[in-house]
Amino acid sequence: MHRTRVRIVADVLDANDTIARANREDFDAHGVAVVNLMSAPGAGKTSLLARVLHELDGVRVGVLEGVVQGTLDAERLASLHVPVTQIETSRGFGGECHLDANMVRSALPEVPLGELDLLVIENVGNLVCPAEFKVGEHHRVMVCSVAEGEDKPLKYPLMFRACELVLVNKVDLLPHLEYDLDLFLRHLDAVNPHAERLLVSARTGEGVDGFRDWLARTAAGAVAVG
Amino acid sequence: MHRTRVRIVADVLDANDTIARANREDFDAHGVAVVNLMSAPGAGKTSLLARVLHELDGVRVGVLEGVVQGTLDAERLASLHVPVTQIETSRGFGGECHLDANMVRSALPEVPLGELDLLVIENVGNLVCPAEFKVGEHHRVMVCSVAEGEDKPLKYPLMFRACELVLVNKVDLLPHLEYDLDLFLRHLDAVNPHAERLLVSARTGEGVDGFRDWLARTAAGAVAVG
Repeated sequence: MHRTRVRIVADVLDANDTIARANREDFDAHGVAVVNLMSAPGAGKTSLLARVLHELDGVRVGVLEGVVQGTLDAERLASLHVPVTQIETSRGFGGECHLDANMVRSALPEVPLGELDLLVIENVGNLVCPAEFKVGEHHRVMVCSVAEGEDKPLKYPLMFRACELVLVNKVDLLPHLEYDLDLFLRHLDAVNPHAERLLVSARTGEGVDGFRDWLARTAAGAVAVG
Repeated sequence: MHRTRVRIVADVLDANDTIARANREDFDAHGVAVVNLMSAPGAGKTSLLARVLHELDGVRVGVLEGVVQGTLDAERLASLHVPVTQIETSRGFGGECHLDANMVRSALPEVPLGELDLLVIENVGNLVCPAEFKVGEHHRVMVCSVAEGEDKPLKYPLMFRACELVLVNKVDLLPHLEYDLDLFLRHLDAVNPHAERLLVSARTGEGVDGFRDWLARTAAGAVAVG
């Protein structure tokens, strides 16, 4: 069973890369910088976006919101008066645990690319498959909460290796956890020494200006495409 | 692409159910109660097991440890002098984001079923696909950390619906979070009102005796098979 499955997955990934290239060409044609934002469930992707999106002065930003089911996150971000398009993987996509290029492609007619400088694609909460499926993005960013423990880079290396920026979130909890931040950073260095890292708290706002500035530079084309 | 993919996934799931039944027959033949333990990454599955496994007096317990990569969790549990068998999904299984029945079957020759009363299968950290693949278990349990937010039952309903027991972990953090426990429990009731729930802290030990007792009753065959 598994040998067949692996071959099928390889074929699906080839098709995915082809469609991802088409998405990228559309993004480039409109001059939109696209960020694929990934994390485990509950790490704080939406909370961080809610903190920074309305502070991106002069940047026209939109969100493509990937979820298995439900509209909670999309509603939360739409309340910031940011254009949000939702992809529910449970509708027509078999309840997939990740976004793929075709799902993003199917949503593009609803995304006002001509009116955007920056599109953030918020992926499904999962540390495995989202890292395997390019969707046409220029940049990959992940959020890792300190509540998840220090070992995540070693247990999910593909995800940490795929990202150029790691947002270490919920640092306001550090005094209340047995969490060794230096150990986490050593583990991150072991799998991806080149990843930029920012310590942030979506709850208190600590460090989120660094993420806001990174997004602004990205929208301006000032961050090298990964 | 997706119509084909969905059909393939349906075929794979049929094959999975067949192999899961064979696993279940082997577990039953040896009189071993089997628990499939699931959660998001970093919710605390291994920490909870480390708290309770050595307190299960008179219960012969083993662990089947599912990971994408690495031996951190297996080593941690083996140090408790519990027989641990590891399945790395990155080796021969394409880096899958979940365990399936065939992976478990391939590991069974290494599991001393004849010497066990209880086998805990610790799944890969993921709130989507592990709920879709039976592995032959009698019981499904999940861990949900309060650091993940109250909305998880609504966003990952299949997982919460699949489980008969939900361990709400890291309750020692409640004073430091903006987390509405009643809201979480209402969301849980909305998708699975029959799920038993226990408030626990693997860090302080609060409430973990309830999980220990549930495992002991399960090993004794005193918990109805799900």
